[in-house]
Amino acid sequence: MSADDDLCTRPATELAALVRAREVSARELLEAHLARIERLNPSLNAVVTLDAEGARAAADAADAAQAAGEPLGRLHGLPVAHKDTHATGGMRTTWGSPLHRDTVPARDELAVARLVGAGAIRVGKTNVPEFAAGSHTFNPVFGVTHNPYRHGLSAGGSSGGAAAALAAGLVPLAEGSDMGGSLRNPAAFCNVAGLRPTPGRVPTWPAPMAWSTLSVQGPMGRTVADVALQLSVLAGPDPRVPIALDDDPAGFAAPLPDRLDGLRVAWTPDLGGRVAVDPAITATLTASLGVFGELGAVVEEACPDLSGADEVFGTLRAWLFDATFSELARRQPEQLKESIRWNAALGARLTGSDLARAERLHTTLFERVVAFFERYDVLLAPTTQVLPFPVEVEYPTEIAGVHQDNYLEWMRSCTVVSATGCPALSVPGGFTPDGLPVGLQVIGPARADRRVLEVGHAFEQATRFGERRPAL
Amino acid sequence: MSADDDLCTRPATELAALVRAREVSARELLEAHLARIERLNPSLNAVVTLDAEGARAAADAADAAQAAGEPLGRLHGLPVAHKDTHATGGMRTTWGSPLHRDTVPARDELAVARLVGAGAIRVGKTNVPEFAAGSHTFNPVFGVTHNPYRHGLSAGGSSGGAAAALAAGLVPLAEGSDMGGSLRNPAAFCNVAGLRPTPGRVPTWPAPMAWSTLSVQGPMGRTVADVALQLSVLAGPDPRVPIALDDDPAGFAAPLPDRLDGLRVAWTPDLGGRVAVDPAITATLTASLGVFGELGAVVEEACPDLSGADEVFGTLRAWLFDATFSELARRQPEQLKESIRWNAALGARLTGSDLARAERLHTTLFERVVAFFERYDVLLAPTTQVLPFPVEVEYPTEIAGVHQDNYLEWMRSCTVVSATGCPALSVPGGFTPDGLPVGLQVIGPARADRRVLEVGHAFEQATRFGERRPAL
Repeated sequence: MSADDDLCTRPATELAALVRAREVSARELLEAHLARIERLNPSLNAVVTLDAEGARAAADAADAAQAAGEPLGRLHGLPVAHKDTHATGGMRTTWGSPLHRDTVPARDELAVARLVGAGAIRVGKTNVPEFAAGSHTFNPVFGVTHNPYRHGLSAGGSSGGAAAALAAGLVPLAEGSDMGGSLRNPAAFCNVAGLRPTPGRVPTWPAPMAWSTLSVQGPMGRTVADVALQLSVLAGPDPRVPIALDDDPAGFAAPLPDRLDGLRVAWTPDLGGRVAVDPAITATLTASLGVFGELGAVVEEACPDLSGADEVFGTLRAWLFDATFSELARRQPEQLKESIRWNAALGARLTGSDLARAERLHTTLFERVVAFFERYDVLLAPTTQVLPFPVEVEYPTEIAGVHQDNYLEWMRSCTVVSATGCPALSVPGGFTPDGLPVGLQVIGPARADRRVLEVGHAFEQATRFGERRPAL
Repeated sequence: MSADDDLCTRPATELAALVRAREVSARELLEAHLARIERLNPSLNAVVTLDAEGARAAADAADAAQAAGEPLGRLHGLPVAHKDTHATGGMRTTWGSPLHRDTVPARDELAVARLVGAGAIRVGKTNVPEFAAGSHTFNPVFGVTHNPYRHGLSAGGSSGGAAAALAAGLVPLAEGSDMGGSLRNPAAFCNVAGLRPTPGRVPTWPAPMAWSTLSVQGPMGRTVADVALQLSVLAGPDPRVPIALDDDPAGFAAPLPDRLDGLRVAWTPDLGGRVAVDPAITATLTASLGVFGELGAVVEEACPDLSGADEVFGTLRAWLFDATFSELARRQPEQLKESIRWNAALGARLTGSDLARAERLHTTLFERVVAFFERYDVLLAPTTQVLPFPVEVEYPTEIAGVHQDNYLEWMRSCTVVSATGCPALSVPGGFTPDGLPVGLQVIGPARADRRVLEVGHAFEQATRFGERRPAL
């Protein structure tokens, strides 16, 4: 491994310190990553749009600002790649759809602008499923993203390009979004960390429905501390976002403790009997959980009653898909993949009463989960129900002998958590005997984003599964 | 006027100080109010359930606690009456409906519990329209509430009993709720102050749809400082309420400034040409606005573009009414007033797509209002389009020659503001030559509840319209 390659696999927290200390310039850091992208991306297909020249200009400007003694942002000089469903000003943003093959937004959307405003260097875009629908990253514009741990297997999705890019050391920073697992599933498949924050923690702007809480944007990183560092930049109120949480985001950048003394941990291998899980995942996680005792925590098997979570998620997702895609599906059906048309058609049949019923179930679910978290500090669960599968498969249709009805069914270990309104972090949870990564989902009560980061960090420090990098 | 009557018309802030200084005991304060209720309530019909014995026991306990040197809440010893749509443990709560004529909830809901927890003495319940629907307070259980300023005229609604009770000095504290003006309209009709807070400022629990932002609970008082004091107790996060705002509510109790130097004030006499307004209201408010210049503010006529606000409010209200009342309307139509059945039937015809369209309009409306408040600090408008009308009228069907279609139409000066998500305070804005009170609506950007209180307070201090008490 070259010195440059070594640089490209270090945590963002370390790289930020190196740049700040002038041990590495932003330009040098960028060139190391550009070289690695050139070498590794052709087979991974994680970064689908690259603006090397724009990035070089930004890196040089960053170095000049530092030389001039200007105040430096928390991410000063760190290369970042943005999810291709997030608008980047002057940089192609396709949403993985042929309809947007040549779309170049006028300006950065809020999450992108916050990262850039904190000093990050925009290098390009990461691959997504068409319109980020589904947890396997392939689309008609750029094709499929491969898993850095094993070529030919899925990187997960929908923030699959982001996870693969991080795991492969193509960038130290990448963000994504999560409606039904899109920051967690690819993190699990690619052995990195991804946080679905509490809705409102990372304000999304612009957004067509400002009060919707189902889809959220959030950070992904090779370490939990990297996720926390990025969250400290992405989070915080914005007057244009009515659901934004008000807390000062700087707290997320504070050091994370290594111990979990007295922490009351609930563990559910199957979301309370609700989902089928590949036995290899259950075995891997069960073996890894012993470390919580060593960290001072007490683990019990328990799960909140998640009744109604499937209806809540299914109804609200279909409603959003109808709002977003039904007109398009009528006008240009051939431009949308079948699973999106199916989901929009489901939504088009919804009545106001159906939505009211879902909102009432949503409310009682939230209340049961609040009560559960009076007894436990966090809930642990498998992030995914399946291991990374061959890229040719659109979605798994069977898990542990149980048939999966549609492209959402196999991701219920994440979708039911989305319905609760809780923050959920996927951290590397171990490897199967066959060498495939497994994700552990750390779920906390609404707004306790910091707590799930603390738990994930302590687990990561004790297990160091994240340090087992792919052979590339 | 007796000494007791004098006590009953002082601000809650003063009464709280008197009790704290042991100049008046909680029991003495209660007895003064009970005597006044006995004398004045029979003709007003503002307090519909009274628990004198329970209140006496609570007042004695409050005095004993004070004598024992226990820490005192911010509302220690102040009598409070609760809106009859708010559940009070062990105290009849009818929602103004014959269906609940004898309903006695097991426990206080959150707003009530917070007031009691801060030391207030629960004396009874204030009258409401049936299920709080509409801005005129009459129902088949208790009949109509009269305006303390003129018997035979409406006290407004839906928090009409609360406003009348405050104006008449029956209690120093009363809270209400506001979907389409229910804290503002009665405040205007009865010459008191009522705040519709930003959604989430006063967490409502339990609530059947925890994420809904249309109906909010909030404080009403004879002075703006009383409203602020009560808000400091009602506000603050609760883990069971996902939309609750996190700020420390203690700040609302801080002294309010008397000057408005440099404040950029927009004034719209008709919500940008959107609503018909009684010319007597326009004339009264126009004459009163001169005081803003004396306070150091700059007033311009301006209004945000409120396009879509009617559809947003109408759709979301109908949706909530379908969810709440459609089943009841099928089973027991004779137990619901026609206007509720009409509204629920409207809601039952809504599709998911209709709601999505409303949510998109809601979002663009919010964004336009945010942009407006970059240019102005507050927006002033008439609270109501009409003066208090005879109690026999169900709702006004004509305003300044313009026909009003239904029981909501005449309240659009409030309903369009509800659709914006902004906090809005009604303060006494002057009197017509005929001696009827007029309300001025002070509207600020979302979350700027403190700002609207400051503006309302400075206006109140300069004009002292609120001190013109009814002859009773």
